[in-house]
Amino acid sequence: VVEGWSFLDTVESNFRPLVVIELAKGTKEETIEWFTKRIVDKKANGGAQLLIKPLVMENGVENIYLVGASHLRLLLGAETVGLVKECSDNSMRAFTYSSRKTFKDFADDNHNFLTMAECQYIIKHELENLRAKTEKMIPGYPQAKLYPGKSIVRRLLTSGILVQIFPLHDREELKKLRHSWYGRVKVGYQPLDDIRCYFGETIALYFGFLEYFTFALIPMAVIGIPYYVFAWEDYDKYVMFATFNLLWSTVILEVWKRICAILTYRWGTLLMKRQFEEPRPGFHGVLGINPVTGREEPVYSSFKRQLRIYLVSLPFVCLCLYFSLYVMMIYFDLEQWALDYHKENESNFSSLMLYVPSIIYAVVIEIMNRIYRYAAEFLTSWENHRLESSYQNHLILKVLVFNFLNCFASLFYIAFVLFDMKLLRQSLATLLITSQILNQFAESLLPYWLQKRYNRRMKKRMCSQKTDRDVSIAEQVNMEKEMGTYLGTFDDYLELFLQFGYVSLFSCVYPLAAVFAVLNNITEIYSDALKMCRVYKRPFAEPTANIGVWQLAFETMSVISVVTNCILIGMSPQVDALFPDSKMDLVLTVALVEHLLLAVKFIMAFVIPDKPRDIQMKLAKLEFESLEALKQQVRAFQMQLHFLLIHH
Amino acid sequence: VVEGWSFLDTVESNFRPLVVIELAKGTKEETIEWFTKRIVDKKANGGAQLLIKPLVMENGVENIYLVGASHLRLLLGAETVGLVKECSDNSMRAFTYSSRKTFKDFADDNHNFLTMAECQYIIKHELENLRAKTEKMIPGYPQAKLYPGKSIVRRLLTSGILVQIFPLHDREELKKLRHSWYGRVKVGYQPLDDIRCYFGETIALYFGFLEYFTFALIPMAVIGIPYYVFAWEDYDKYVMFATFNLLWSTVILEVWKRICAILTYRWGTLLMKRQFEEPRPGFHGVLGINPVTGREEPVYSSFKRQLRIYLVSLPFVCLCLYFSLYVMMIYFDLEQWALDYHKENESNFSSLMLYVPSIIYAVVIEIMNRIYRYAAEFLTSWENHRLESSYQNHLILKVLVFNFLNCFASLFYIAFVLFDMKLLRQSLATLLITSQILNQFAESLLPYWLQKRYNRRMKKRMCSQKTDRDVSIAEQVNMEKEMGTYLGTFDDYLELFLQFGYVSLFSCVYPLAAVFAVLNNITEIYSDALKMCRVYKRPFAEPTANIGVWQLAFETMSVISVVTNCILIGMSPQVDALFPDSKMDLVLTVALVEHLLLAVKFIMAFVIPDKPRDIQMKLAKLEFESLEALKQQVRAFQMQLHFLLIHH
Repeated sequence: VVEGWSFLDTVESNFRPLVVIELAKGTKEETIEWFTKRIVDKKANGGAQLLIKPLVMENGVENIYLVGASHLRLLLGAETVGLVKECSDNSMRAFTYSSRKTFKDFADDNHNFLTMAECQYIIKHELENLRAKTEKMIPGYPQAKLYPGKSIVRRLLTSGILVQIFPLHDREELKKLRHSWYGRVKVGYQPLDDIRCYFGETIALYFGFLEYFTFALIPMAVIGIPYYVFAWEDYDKYVMFATFNLLWSTVILEVWKRICAILTYRWGTLLMKRQFEEPRPGFHGVLGINPVTGREEPVYSSFKRQLRIYLVSLPFVCLCLYFSLYVMMIYFDLEQWALDYHKENESNFSSLMLYVPSIIYAVVIEIMNRIYRYAAEFLTSWENHRLESSYQNHLILKVLVFNFLNCFASLFYIAFVLFDMKLLRQSLATLLITSQILNQFAESLLPYWLQKRYNRRMKKRMCSQKTDRDVSIAEQVNMEKEMGTYLGTFDDYLELFLQFGYVSLFSCVYPLAAVFAVLNNITEIYSDALKMCRVYKRPFAEPTANIGVWQLAFETMSVISVVTNCILIGMSPQVDALFPDSKMDLVLTVALVEHLLLAVKFIMAFVIPDKPRDIQMKLAKLEFESLEALKQQVRAFQMQLHFLLIHH
Repeated sequence: VVEGWSFLDTVESNFRPLVVIELAKGTKEETIEWFTKRIVDKKANGGAQLLIKPLVMENGVENIYLVGASHLRLLLGAETVGLVKECSDNSMRAFTYSSRKTFKDFADDNHNFLTMAECQYIIKHELENLRAKTEKMIPGYPQAKLYPGKSIVRRLLTSGILVQIFPLHDREELKKLRHSWYGRVKVGYQPLDDIRCYFGETIALYFGFLEYFTFALIPMAVIGIPYYVFAWEDYDKYVMFATFNLLWSTVILEVWKRICAILTYRWGTLLMKRQFEEPRPGFHGVLGINPVTGREEPVYSSFKRQLRIYLVSLPFVCLCLYFSLYVMMIYFDLEQWALDYHKENESNFSSLMLYVPSIIYAVVIEIMNRIYRYAAEFLTSWENHRLESSYQNHLILKVLVFNFLNCFASLFYIAFVLFDMKLLRQSLATLLITSQILNQFAESLLPYWLQKRYNRRMKKRMCSQKTDRDVSIAEQVNMEKEMGTYLGTFDDYLELFLQFGYVSLFSCVYPLAAVFAVLNNITEIYSDALKMCRVYKRPFAEPTANIGVWQLAFETMSVISVVTNCILIGMSPQVDALFPDSKMDLVLTVALVEHLLLAVKFIMAFVIPDKPRDIQMKLAKLEFESLEALKQQVRAFQMQLHFLLIHH
């Protein structure tokens, strides 16, 4: 008998829990019965054909379920989601069940061919694609409407019956990963492939970018240190530093694309076909016919959405920007007051007071950024975008514009209105360092500490003397379900983006910024790793081929930084002195240099290929093969036809 | 008996000549026999399964062959090349023989389902894909080596045995097309769909772009006229004009992308899959293994090519650029001399003499452009690029850089070194008008006149009193084979590109340029149409989805024009007068405005979608359908597997 591929074998013997489903307490029996029936039902009957088992807690409440799947089911699921794996001949190919023997490390009894993260991703995909057939509503909940083709899990989530779905940690694996990642103090690369196996490509790519970016900043930091040590104030040195910085930032962003291609090729996501995007869970509208799919589903007029964007969101964002500028002006008043105070009573205390406004402002900026973030999320969700990608793009645009202004407006004001380079340097340093400390604290250490305290209490409450190793599944689930949910890499990238701004926008004024950035990023790697491994629930793996819109954001920042650096250098007294006769010549020279630098940047971005030559060759080879296969098919068909015609 | 799908029916009854093959005079019998055998041979035997017929000329020499194909063969060929046609439900789909009934206007006896241009394209494709099997050389020519997989036609062409392959005109169709295109004087659009049916997508898209560009220039021209009529010299008006121009040029380039998508969607090329690129005919190297295809074919080290590019081509191009600048300096000497002459003896003749240097310079520029063009072609071909696309990119880059400098260097010099706006206006006018007249003459009228004279002689020599209508195939072939070969749309686009430069780079100095451009383009449409219909051999249709690298070239030009126009406006005495106190403020304002305009340009290019909404929807629908079909396949396979397992 073939194991696992049947409705019946929900038996415990070959059941490995992968994903946890938490239903609301007091969910009706008929709903649970219907839902679990749909999950285990055969594919042919529109089910997901997975395995499910209730978890009996000590208080006897049955609202948590463990989901798993047979080995064969997972392999077929891998084909459905389009996983790309390595073949025996070292090429990467989309996995299909029929060609399974050609894949590296495949054996019918090798249950590690798919990583646990991949299995969990497959299960998530299958659950989300469990669709209503003829049901008009969720049994037991007449207000939770369904229509043919609607994802059941999404409706359960939006109507609050399903509290959460999350993948389980693998304690053994996690321990190994933790050890090789941040367990010992060492100089070296992160175990990116292991991270990818455990957390999926999106998160591994973030850590890859973080590491790459840190290494890329090291040359800037190294060149920046002597400026501080020897207190170099010659502007020709600053010019050199800024020019190096500008070209370097272009090079690192271009090279990242290549490294990204190498990583994602190795992980298979570079070749993964894009799946057709379903509406996002929160999308709502009146039932109509989708012109693309021809299915009945909620539709929402694009005109109404545009109205909401341009008449509500845009004014709101502008208002927030205005408010942010207003707060900035208050900061300058405070700054002035502190200066006056320092002048009146010169003391150690008063000279310390000089830093207080900047620190307060940095804290306020962080708070405003976080509040605005919630508002932006609410507004973008209210704009009712149909696709997750469109939602994300609008959210990112809103957040980026505000964060950019909020963080850098005061620096621009100091630099180009007050012309006070000393204040600029001081503000830059305070803002950068304060925001870094705040971030590290708010992001990782605080949640870690809270989590640790909670875990200790949990353990004490449950049976007391057990060690980590023999915690039962029930205890593990109970512990993990209370952990925070990791909301994606958005905040992490945003932090890096703003840091890149601090480093590059005014690099010629404060070469030391790169040093702080490097130091921060080294601890950031550790604190982010800690956060992923100990603070949050395990996130579902999410295949991705690049860092998406962030590449564009970083490139835009590096273009803006060319402009700001050229102006700063042009404004310096040393450069001024080079053109004693005519200010005109100075400005014209600066403008010329700026345009040349921009031109060089664009030409460099154009000339450096986005993918290394060997990856290009491999991709060309795959394309060639698939075209050949198609040609073979056409030829075979034509031969067949020919044969038929001759024997007509 | 099914007609046409057999080796035997090379009979005359259902033979329609589509393509002409001209072999060199005195080609050996065995070669001809082998070649024709390969052409008519079955697909299964590695032939092209086409029909071929020798054309007996009056002098008895048999070196010209007519190639055709059966209706069924052409339909199968349409599937192979991936033609996209309209279905009965108005959607566009890739044609397949098995789904032929679902296509609009398809009937088994409708031989017009494929246009003649499509049939000719299919035959060309099949001929080019006729590949050597075990032959080591072309029979009869031991020096013309072959290896398995080498295209026979390409080898025949490079070894001079095959003189040319060209498609035949369809006299009736051509007459109709000529009539609707330029036969009567009318105001209206060109019959783009008819042009596309007759000449293919690449040429139709050029004429579409030419027409669109002309219409797009009309607003500029209309706004430009009063500047000339009323001799407006206020700079605020010029500023208005330039600002309008800059934003307008961005808008028209973005809108063109949308129109291009509409056109190519209708023509099916937007959806056509890219074919795998074979090496270009001229590519040579030592026989090795191609790492992508795994086939034995000539390989040429990329390192050697880079050496040739950077050590020979690049210095050569720089030398040419230097030479062009040198010629420019001579022109300025001449100009000075003419001015002096005019000052000494003020007469009508001497004032006419003022224009002579510009005219001579314009003629020299045209000549240099043309000579350089040959040099660039030679060099790029010597660089030995493997792919036609890479060859084209390197050629276009070389030619664009040189032409840009050659045409605009003198204007830049006058504007930004001599600061002589009056001379700039005069030079711009002379250069623009002279180059337009020269182009029209050299491109269409001269070849047309030569062709006409030749045709008249031909007709006289052959049987004399026949009218156009009953010219036999032999006479038609004889006439057409002597016509010039149309070398592609490169020169036509280049002309438009330079014209765009004249119009936009210095638009605020000479608003009348747009008027001349519009006038030129109206006659250009007619003279290009004449050229296509009467002067040249019919070109093979070439499917294409956009104007390719030219879009980028035009966009780059419009970015450069923002910079030049801002500087020109900043240099004007009127704007100068607005800042009486400080030149600095002036320059800073100009720089600020320039950066704002550039930012607006980029944001506009980003915000305006490249494809209209309905085309996006149609594409999404097609993608959805193909994904659904794939899913169905996977599901069917899984069901089958499931069935097998249950009955295990």
